[in-house]
Formats: sequence, C-alpha cells, structure tokens
Amino acid sequence: MWEQIYEKIDALYNRMVEDRRYLHQHPELSFEEKETSKYICNRYDELEIPYQKNIGGYGVIAKIVGGKPGKTVALRADFDALPIQEENDVPYKSKVDGVMHACGHDGHTASLLAVAEAVLPFKDELEGTMVFLHQPAEEYAPGGAKPMIEDGALEGVDAVFGTHLWATTPVHTIETTNGAFMAGADRFEITFKGKGGHGAMPHQTKDPVVMTGQAIVELQQVVSRRLDPLQSAVLTIGVIEAGEAFNVIPDTARLQGTVRYLDKNVQDQIIDEMHKVLKGISESYDAEYELDYVKGYPPVINHPAETEYYLNEGKDIPGVNQVNEVPPVMGGEDFAYYLEERPGTFFFTGAKIEGHDYPHHHPKFDINEEALPIAAKALVHGYKKYQES
Amino acid sequence: MWEQIYEKIDALYNRMVEDRRYLHQHPELSFEEKETSKYICNRYDELEIPYQKNIGGYGVIAKIVGGKPGKTVALRADFDALPIQEENDVPYKSKVDGVMHACGHDGHTASLLAVAEAVLPFKDELEGTMVFLHQPAEEYAPGGAKPMIEDGALEGVDAVFGTHLWATTPVHTIETTNGAFMAGADRFEITFKGKGGHGAMPHQTKDPVVMTGQAIVELQQVVSRRLDPLQSAVLTIGVIEAGEAFNVIPDTARLQGTVRYLDKNVQDQIIDEMHKVLKGISESYDAEYELDYVKGYPPVINHPAETEYYLNEGKDIPGVNQVNEVPPVMGGEDFAYYLEERPGTFFFTGAKIEGHDYPHHHPKFDINEEALPIAAKALVHGYKKYQES
Amino acid sequence: MWEQIYEKIDALYNRMVEDRRYLHQHPELSFEEKETSKYICNRYDELEIPYQKNIGGYGVIAKIVGGKPGKTVALRADFDALPIQEENDVPYKSKVDGVMHACGHDGHTASLLAVAEAVLPFKDELEGTMVFLHQPAEEYAPGGAKPMIEDGALEGVDAVFGTHLWATTPVHTIETTNGAFMAGADRFEITFKGKGGHGAMPHQTKDPVVMTGQAIVELQQVVSRRLDPLQSAVLTIGVIEAGEAFNVIPDTARLQGTVRYLDKNVQDQIIDEMHKVLKGISESYDAEYELDYVKGYPPVINHPAETEYYLNEGKDIPGVNQVNEVPPVMGGEDFAYYLEERPGTFFFTGAKIEGHDYPHHHPKFDINEEALPIAAKALVHGYKKYQES
Amino acid sequence: MWEQIYEKIDALYNRMVEDRRYLHQHPELSFEEKETSKYICNRYDELEIPYQKNIGGYGVIAKIVGGKPGKTVALRADFDALPIQEENDVPYKSKVDGVMHACGHDGHTASLLAVAEAVLPFKDELEGTMVFLHQPAEEYAPGGAKPMIEDGALEGVDAVFGTHLWATTPVHTIETTNGAFMAGADRFEITFKGKGGHGAMPHQTKDPVVMTGQAIVELQQVVSRRLDPLQSAVLTIGVIEAGEAFNVIPDTARLQGTVRYLDKNVQDQIIDEMHKVLKGISESYDAEYELDYVKGYPPVINHPAETEYYLNEGKDIPGVNQVNEVPPVMGGEDFAYYLEERPGTFFFTGAKIEGHDYPHHHPKFDINEEALPIAAKALVHGYKKYQES
Repeated sequence: MWEQIYEKIDALYNRMVEDRRYLHQHPELSFEEKETSKYICNRYDELEIPYQKNIGGYGVIAKIVGGKPGKTVALRADFDALPIQEENDVPYKSKVDGVMHACGHDGHTASLLAVAEAVLPFKDELEGTMVFLHQPAEEYAPGGAKPMIEDGALEGVDAVFGTHLWATTPVHTIETTNGAFMAGADRFEITFKGKGGHGAMPHQTKDPVVMTGQAIVELQQVVSRRLDPLQSAVLTIGVIEAGEAFNVIPDTARLQGTVRYLDKNVQDQIIDEMHKVLKGISESYDAEYELDYVKGYPPVINHPAETEYYLNEGKDIPGVNQVNEVPPVMGGEDFAYYLEERPGTFFFTGAKIEGHDYPHHHPKFDINEEALPIAAKALVHGYKKYQES
Repeated sequence: MWEQIYEKIDALYNRMVEDRRYLHQHPELSFEEKETSKYICNRYDELEIPYQKNIGGYGVIAKIVGGKPGKTVALRADFDALPIQEENDVPYKSKVDGVMHACGHDGHTASLLAVAEAVLPFKDELEGTMVFLHQPAEEYAPGGAKPMIEDGALEGVDAVFGTHLWATTPVHTIETTNGAFMAGADRFEITFKGKGGHGAMPHQTKDPVVMTGQAIVELQQVVSRRLDPLQSAVLTIGVIEAGEAFNVIPDTARLQGTVRYLDKNVQDQIIDEMHKVLKGISESYDAEYELDYVKGYPPVINHPAETEYYLNEGKDIPGVNQVNEVPPVMGGEDFAYYLEERPGTFFFTGAKIEGHDYPHHHPKFDINEEALPIAAKALVHGYKKYQES
Repeated sequence: MWEQIYEKIDALYNRMVEDRRYLHQHPELSFEEKETSKYICNRYDELEIPYQKNIGGYGVIAKIVGGKPGKTVALRADFDALPIQEENDVPYKSKVDGVMHACGHDGHTASLLAVAEAVLPFKDELEGTMVFLHQPAEEYAPGGAKPMIEDGALEGVDAVFGTHLWATTPVHTIETTNGAFMAGADRFEITFKGKGGHGAMPHQTKDPVVMTGQAIVELQQVVSRRLDPLQSAVLTIGVIEAGEAFNVIPDTARLQGTVRYLDKNVQDQIIDEMHKVLKGISESYDAEYELDYVKGYPPVINHPAETEYYLNEGKDIPGVNQVNEVPPVMGGEDFAYYLEERPGTFFFTGAKIEGHDYPHHHPKFDINEEALPIAAKALVHGYKKYQES
Repeated sequence: MWEQIYEKIDALYNRMVEDRRYLHQHPELSFEEKETSKYICNRYDELEIPYQKNIGGYGVIAKIVGGKPGKTVALRADFDALPIQEENDVPYKSKVDGVMHACGHDGHTASLLAVAEAVLPFKDELEGTMVFLHQPAEEYAPGGAKPMIEDGALEGVDAVFGTHLWATTPVHTIETTNGAFMAGADRFEITFKGKGGHGAMPHQTKDPVVMTGQAIVELQQVVSRRLDPLQSAVLTIGVIEAGEAFNVIPDTARLQGTVRYLDKNVQDQIIDEMHKVLKGISESYDAEYELDYVKGYPPVINHPAETEYYLNEGKDIPGVNQVNEVPPVMGGEDFAYYLEERPGTFFFTGAKIEGHDYPHHHPKFDINEEALPIAAKALVHGYKKYQES
C-alpha cells in the first residue's frame, strides 16, 4: 500500500503545482487568510473528506479514519504569507501588492493536500487515523498553532509530524536534528519618547533619532557581552520608523525587531538586559522609552525516537538520497507548541532552485517545485513509521 | 501719513486674524500651494491692487506705485506649510491631515496683506513703490525665493525687508543682528544598500539597519571632531525609514536630514567628511551607500545700514517696546537669496503665547495673533526708513 | 595498590599545601619561570626520580618506569603565573608586585608532585610508565605545550591526562565533556596610527582615541552580526593604552585583546571581519591601523573513550561525589596540543572556597586546598583506567 | 629712548637664543620648575635687577622702577614644559626623557629677560615701573597665574600684557582679537568602576573597556547635540588607561581629557551633560562611574583699549609687518586671570619655521628664533602705549 501511495503522490505532481501557484498568486497575511482557508476547504469538499473549519482562527482540520486500528497521527502544514513585495519575474508572481509567500507555506499546503488525495483511495487498508492540520498565522506571534491546540487540534492525536520546504538545501535532501532544532522567536517594539523640535536646534530637544542610533549599536552587546557566549542568540532590528520631515526632529522613534534563542533560560535575561541598555540611553537624555516585548514561539525541540525515523531511515523515502544531521536553525516555528504536547519531529525538505540563491523572506525567494512530492512522501513516512513503532 | 497707516493696520486686526486662520485651516505643502496662491490673488482682486501670479512657481507679486518719486522697496512674506500633524486643540486647527502651518507663514501672509490694504488709501502721497513678494516653498530647498528672483522678482527693486513671527520671543519685541543672522541650510538623503535576509541569520546579510545605527552615532563627529570648533554647525537626521517586517532584515535603509552652518567655507568640508564616515561604515560591510546632498539656502547675511533701522530705531515702531541684538539662529531661510542681490535686512517679530511654549515645527506650535499688526508695522517701518535714507 | 596510592596522596596533604603556598608566594610570568622550574627539579632530586629539564623552555619531564609491562601515560601540570596584582589578604599572598598565581597553576604543580611521591613506593608493582609533564607558559600564546612536544615530550607516550583546579565548581566535583571542552584562544593587538596635536584643535588631527572608541563598540558586531549565531565566540579587549597628557591628542592608540571560539572554521572569518571593521574606521579618518593577530591555542577536543573514564566512572575516585557533563568553557588551554597528538582528556577538579566567589584571573582569585589531593587522585585514575583498557 | 631699546633688543639676539636653548634642553614639568626658576633668578642677579622669588610657587617677579613718574605695567612670561618626548633632531634637543618645551615657554622667558636687559640702561629716563612676571605652571590647571596673583603679583600694577610665540603664524606677524581670544580650559578624569574577570567570560563581568568605548563615542554628543550650536566647545579625551593583560577584563578604566569653551555660561551645562551620558552608560551595566572635573582657566577676554594698541598700531613695532584680527583660539591660558583683575591684552607673536609645520604640543614642535626679539619689542610696545594713554 505505501508504495502505491508514494506513486499516487508523484502522479499528483501537476495538481500540487497548480495548488501551490494559485496560493502563491493570492497570498494573505497572518490572521487574514480567509480566502486561503476557503480554498483548502473547497479542496476537501472536492475530495469528500470531512473537515472542521475556523479552528483557532482560520485553521482547517481534516481526517481520514483508516479501516484498521492504529494510532492517530497528525501532519501539519501552515498557510500564511509575509508583508514582502515580490521581486521574482515569474508567471505565478504574487498578485497582491506588498504580500508574498516568501517562506514556502504555499508549497506546504499543496503537499499536504496531495497526501490526503493520495491516501484516500487506501482508506480501508489504512491503520490508524491521519489528521491534516492546516494552520494559519505561523509567521506572526502568537501564531496559529497555539489557538488550534486550544481549540482541540491535538485531542486524540498520538504524534505529530511537520516539514518545512527549505530553499537553501538541495532537492532530494532531508535535514533535521535531535533536540533543539529551531530557535525560540520573540518580537519586540521599542519606542523612544523624546521631545521634538527644529532640526537646527538640537539642544532644545531630546532627539529620539540619536537614541535610536545608540540603541541599534548598543543592543548588539546583549548578545556579544551580556549573555554566556555558549548561548546562541540573535537580536535583529528589522524596522525603524522615525520622523516625517528631514528638518524636524521628531518626538518619538519606533523600532521593531526579533530575538532568537535556543534555550528557554536565556529569554528573560535578554529582556532584562535590553531594558538596562534602553534605560541607560533614554535616561542620559532625560527621555523615556517603552519596550513592548512579545514572547513568541518557544524553541522547536525534536523528540529522539521520531527524529530517528528521518536521521536513520530517511533514505527509505522515495526521492530522498541524502539525510543531513544539521545544527539548529535560528528561525522560529510555532510547530514548537505541538512538540511541547506530543511526540514527533520537524524536518526540512530541500527545495533549492540551483542558480537562484535567495534566502527565506527575501523578495526573490522561490522554491523548487520538484520538492513538493518529496515533502508529501516524507510526511507519509513519519505516519508509517509511527504506526509500526 | 505713516501714523495713519499704522492706525489703519491696527484697525485691520480682525481681517488679519481671519486671513491667518483661514490659511491655518487650509495649509499646503511646499511647491503645492495652489489654493493658498489663489486665496492671495483673490484678496488683491478685492483690493483692486494689480499683481502678477505664477512667479517662480505659485509666487504672487503685487505693487503699489506711490504718487511721489522714490525708491522701490520689496516686502516679503512666505506662505507654505509643513508635513506635521497638528496637535493643537483650537477652533482654527488644520483641516488637512498631516499638514500644518507650524512655522507661522500663515501669519506672515496675513500681515503683508494688511500692509497692502492699509497703504492703499495713501497711494498718492506715497514716495516710491511698495512691492509685495508673496513667496511659496520656503520650507523645502531649493525653495521659492530663487525661482522668483530668476523670474524677475527683484527687477527694479532697490532694497528688500522681511520678518519672521517668532514663537519663542515675547510679543512687542524685535530681534535681529548684523551680518550672519540665519544659517545656511542643506538637505541630504543617505541610502545604505546592503543585502537583506531572514532576521535570524544576520551573518548571511549586510544589515543596513546596523549601518544606520552607526551612521547616526558617527556622523555627529563631523561637527564635534572634524570641523574647526569655532565654526557653528549642526547635522540632524530627521527621518529614518528602514524595513517592513520585524523579522526581515531589509536590503536598504534611508535617512534624511539637514545640515546648518554660518560660514560658506565649511559647507564642502562637511560634505567631504560625511562621505568619509559613510564610506568607512559601508565598506566595513562590503556594502554601498549613496549620499544625495542638496545644497540649500546660503546663510542670511543682514546688511549693516538697513539692520540699524531696527537695532537703533526699532522702538519707533508702534507696539515695539524692546529690541534685542541676538546671536545668529541655526534655522535657514531662503530670504538669504534676496540679500545676496539687494541691500536689506531680516528680523524676528516676537509672537510668543505666554504659557504655550512650543518651538517652531512642533505639532503644538502656535503664534500670538497680537503680533500680526506689529509685524505689518515693522515692515512698513523698513520701507519708510529706506525712503528717508 | 591503587587504594594505597590514594591513601598516600591524602597523607601528603600538608606537603601539597606547602608546595602550593611556596609557589603562590613566588609566582613567575610565562616564559620567565626559571625559579619555579628549579623548585620542581629540586623536588624530584629529593625524591630521586629521574627527570629532564629545559624541555621546550623551562619544562621538566620526570618518569616512573613501572616494574610491569604496560602503556606509557603522561600526566600534565602547568606552572606559570599572571601579570595581576594580588588583592587577597592571606599569609601566602604573592610576594611579587603585579604577579600572581591567579589561575591555580601553583596547585596543579603541587598535586602532580604529590602523585609522583605517592606512586614511587609502588614502582615495582606499577604497570606501564608514568610520565610527569611540568609545563611552563600556559597563559601566554604560543605557550609551553607546543615547544615541549617539539622537544619530544610525547615520544613513546600513549595517552595524556590533565586537570584544571576550578574555583567556581564545588570541591568533590569533577566536570568535563566529550568533544569541544575548551575554546580556541587567540591574542591580538590593534594599533591606530592617526595624527596627534593640541586637544583643543581636533580638526587638525586624526584622533586615534576616537577611533579606539569606535573600534571597541563596533568590533562587538563581529560576534553579534557577522558570525553564524550558532558559533560560540568571544572578542574581548583587555588593554587600552593611549596618550600621555590629558590635553594632547596622541599620534597612536594601542588595544590588546583575545578571541575565543570552539570551531576552527570560524577563526579566519573572525580575523577577516576584524580587518573590515578596523579598515572602515581608520579610512574614515584617512588614518591607518595595524592588526597583529596571533593565532593561539586551538580548542581542547576531548577524546570520547578517555572522557568516559570520568563521565561514567569518575565517582570511583575517592573524594569525588559528583560528576557533571558541562557545556564547553570559553577559556583556552594549550593542553589542546597534546590532544591533537594523542588520545586523552582534560577535566576540571572543583576547588571552590564557599563564600569567596571570584573567577579565575581576578585579583581575589583563590583555590580551596582540599581540592589538591582530589586532583592528584583523579589524574592517577586516568592512568589506571587507561592501563586497564 | 624707545628706538634705542628696540635696537638693544636686537643686539641681544644671541643672548636670547642662548637662554632659550639652555631652557629647551632642561625642561621642567608644571609645578616642578625649580631649576628653571633658579636660572631666571641668576640672570636677574647678573643684571643686578631686584626681584622676589617663590611667588605663588616658583614664580619670580623683577622690577625696574623708572626715573620718571608713570604707571606700573606688568609684562608676563610663563616657563613650564610638557610631558612629551621630543622628536626633533636638533642640537638643543631636550635632555630630559619625556619632557619637552613643546609650547614655546622657553622662548617667552628668553624674550622677557631680554626686555629687562635692554630697558635697564634707560632706567632713569623711563616713565613708570616695568614689572617682569615670570610665571610657572601655565600648562596644568589650577596653574601658576592664580597663586601669583594671590601672592600679590598685581599689587600696584595698572595693566598687564603678555604674548605667546605662535608656531603656525609666520614671523613678523602679530595676531589678536577683542573680547574672547582664548578658550576656557578644563581638565577631567573619568573612572568606570565595573567588575573584572576572565576575558572569555564577559557575561560574568561588568566590562569597563566597553563602557570606555561607548563613553568616547557618546560624549561627542555633548558638543554636537546638547549645546547650543552657536556655542563653540571642544571635549577631547587625551589619555585612556585600562587593563594590564590582554585576556583579563579589568575592574576599572580611566580616561583623562580636556574641555574648552568661550562663554562661561556653558561650562556647567557641559559638566551636567557629561554626568548624564556617563550615568546612562554605567547604569546600563549596573556599574559606577566617577567624574572628577577640575574647572581650569576661564576664557582670555582681551580689553578693548589695550587690544587696539596692537590691532591698530601693531605695525609701529619694528619687525612687525602684518597684524591680523583673528578668530578666538580654543587653547586655554591662565593669562585669563590677570585680565579678570586688570586691563590689558594678550597676543600672538608669529614664530613659524617655514617647512616645519607642527602644531603646539606636538613632539616635533619648534619655534623660529627670529621671533624672539619681535616678541620682546611687542611687549615693550604695550608698556609704551599704556604710558602714553
């Protein structure tokens, strides 16, 4: 049966490409994926697979209950896009200004839909229950995984598997690791509240632009001087907004950024040190600051047994000829919440387009569509191994 | 006659307030003052004073040719507004979102219109010709003064006077100085061209946000370490724009700012040192920068003889009971161009609202309307003294 | 036999304390340990154990050839001190101004001498050969281990063990880890060559003090922004020397510091990024810099089998009741060179004085002398296990 | 008589060079000028001119009471040297390691001795009393002028004149200005008190080196952002001392520097802003700082009438063919104290060696000895004009 399912997945290649490209052209931002959710529901309607919708927001959960007894295993795909203006010149380019599937979630969705379509004909032979978790809002904390779990997504589920198409890893390659695999990912916003005035009279103001400059430079010391050097952490400022006129010193400046870490223990220390740095800067100007720190996803901690399905036996998956045990990745993933509740693992499915070398979240990001069936088969592989365990 | 003109100006107080408040509610940005210009023309139509319009953009020049021979003296008022969101809670608050008369040009215009209306009845007695220069676009280099001059605004003009309502100086006070009175004012835009990417993988990027932080901090050394300490100069960054998503490192960051100086000789040195600082920063990241430096208004250099009309004889103006010889002001003014071509002087007319202490360009800036007739009379005083000279 | 040796070590406690305190009072800087070396030789003379001296500098190698066949195992102790002014108020306080055993090498030497004295009576029963490596100059790269190896210290040696008394770990505890245990440790010196002058005329100079300030701040970005966040690294500046008179801008400034890392692959990248940062700074002043980067000790990479003697069986050592598998330590150790050549392991022997909490290299650093016999027995344990293997 | 005095001065050229070179070879630091003082006394002994010694330290005051009634006018020369290692290769190079007459005070002394020797023969004809103020310790606040005044140096004195040989101004040129001519000059020392430790474990320390880097960079904002841009000010750090070992983070770091300003009103504001900056930095590390700020010499404010002797009539001095009215100089001078008490003026006597272009306080500083008789005659000129006034 499994071989036939794998063959069926390959046969669904065009369908996957079609789904993925439609979604790529119609991206929706986190928490706003109304049409994407509807698209997924329509596809399950076509397949006549039962599903629940509006789970934890726009989440969709479909199920195939096998004809034979077995465990219940969930496979997850996220489906939100990013506030990035696409710069690829492709026929399936985003039709929405400033919004783009720049992280491959369009592909995740297409692959998981193909799994459902490929497994369906073998329903009676199937041991256990296959649960399809279509999750919204992975890109923006607090994310979609947590509310889906709160809405019961893991009830009755024994284990959970998920994959990320990975644009910097060659096709036919799978990558994962035991333990910490992806970072804790937090979001913050800093506001400096100074006192504006004429650009030519700085001494009458409390210039939040100068405070911003100092903050960007000195916050780096949180990582380089204030944490144990063995602790991997990143503090990035992605957005600065200050001022409206070149010759007017504004009252306030606003910075947004992200923190990444691999060990829960350093999270509060980072927040504490950020406060110290920002307090020092603002007090030196008799000004004020606000730090709005939103704790985001915890680190993704892969479970050993389920991870070995891939590290040891990943080459059994048709289309996979290379398995890499890799160091952790500093990107965050709300898949972490599933793994806090259930055994399972998360892995990367290589999706590199040779010669088109752009990282995730880049305006020229793209995935190799040959990876779509491999991702689908790799998820099925997890289900199969867990039934056998 | 002059006393009667002064009385007439006082009698026009309500008219000035009405003009000023109308303009305050309908502010227009530099180079976009179409309706403001129309409003001024309508007022001259009402008064049946001949004028030319569309001079150097939306500029308006009206003239009263006196019945007696004499010199031709221009009085100037600027009329553009700023990209600032008004935060005053007043009945005449700006009706345009994000645009505000935060520098008093509404009042300048109202005062100059009142001068015309007050002088008109005495046309036959008047010696010489009074020219009313209503100038657009003072706030944004290259400004409106230069194109008005290029369109012939100073042809036949012997001298020129102008005033600025000054919100931090008490009413009934006039301030000016001989020689350098206001700064040279330039505008610049810096773009750092790095390489964006995922916020969790800074080592794969060339982060323009970090370059921005360093630039803000290190550009201050241009003023504090690289110029002769005796040279007064300011380098302010008023706007920072970088990034769109908190967890995405952008490709580029953009800063806008202004430079002020009192001595033409340091201008090129400042530009040169800015290039050095920016080059050092961007090269340390194998990245690139652009500095688009727009040389703006030169310093306002008051002429000695005409300045003495105010420093020595300013108390002769009804309503003025204090004259201060003040140090130069770091704000720029394109009145500088008139004074490069003709004798004349520029002075401040105190317009402070006691208890409402906000500087020019602040969202809560406001002027004391009692200053309007004083400004009008002080301009007439310049005309009078120059005819007598 | 081994139990008797352990008992003999305990019996030598006073002797160890005496040796340690004598050495503590007479510390010598790296490469200058002439008298320390002589002291060690005298002790072997007393014991009538044969030794070689002046190995790789002031190194001393003694040997006890056992009466029974077996493997040759080296035990190592380093014996140099640091340029630190001791601030402890103890009877055995350093008698040399500005020099101090602030890292415990006095104790290492005392423990190893006790091992020799304790094993000697059992010479005939002993399997294999025990080699005592007394090594100079651990604190200052290129160190003493490398020249000792070049002088043949490891000829005929099958394995090597070493320990560090660790002042922040409780007594009766042993700590180590498999693989990377201590960091690669490099030394660098930066010189900014500017142009000095009068402190009141900065614009006529190229101020190396300002360059120094920028360098301290910006070099932190090498760690926080320019390396893979998963790579643990430290860049510390320990010494700044600039200027002689408060009102004179000097021609040059000099900084000294250290770099630590756990993966050989990042070493050259760090050097490269340091050059970029320093070049950017100095070029922005038309000045010059020199970076004299001395590659120091590689990371200490413990061998798995020998490390298990401690991780698994460490509690067999009398006096040890706790074994911790710990994360790597960012301090460097030239014990790394021995482990590049031979199997073996390096571990910490807890030596904390409760209530006296000062880190290594601190002017108030001190060790708990109760740890001396434990360190000695733990070295013997390595020898014993290796013979049994 | 005056012409004869001028001729006599020229005739004393070799004597001046001899005096100057002897002093140049035997420089003494501020407050330690015992031998220099003795040398001066010996010269007055030779001339049989009465003098007092040990005035306000090593100060010497000689007097020639003229045969005719008139005013009492003091002429001043300072005589201390600097902690700089001379790098000139000249026969009269400093014989004292690390100490150098790098500011020309050797020449001042030689010139003033020549004035005494030249005037002496004309004593009976002389109107008034000529006072020779040989002052120690000009280079190091609180300086020698203040204690000399406190010891009565100005008792009975009507006016005071002084000059500085100026190495960047051509010979035969005199420079001065009315009002503020030289800056207020203060000295400060900053100590950051952190917590030291191992260079590889920064997170266990409070690193005063990083605080030092931030302080150097951010203190520049006192000048560039926190003072009125019209206020000329300089804040220079001349000395940094931190650490003793490259791999040890020190407990403290020490910075020394100078502040210059032209207006007494900004002095306290600078101190206040320095405290804010330093407090912000140290608090962000839970560390402490000390700012030991020593208010030094006030600005030199020249008196109008006496300054006109040089600006208007300076060319009457034989050897002077150019008089420049120059902008103020940011260097400080304790001559300021004399001018707070008495009318008078301070001026520069050009002493440039063409082709040897090194500023004051540079290790290659030197003066053109042709300037020595000009400086002497220019001091006599002040005396003469004041008697005539």
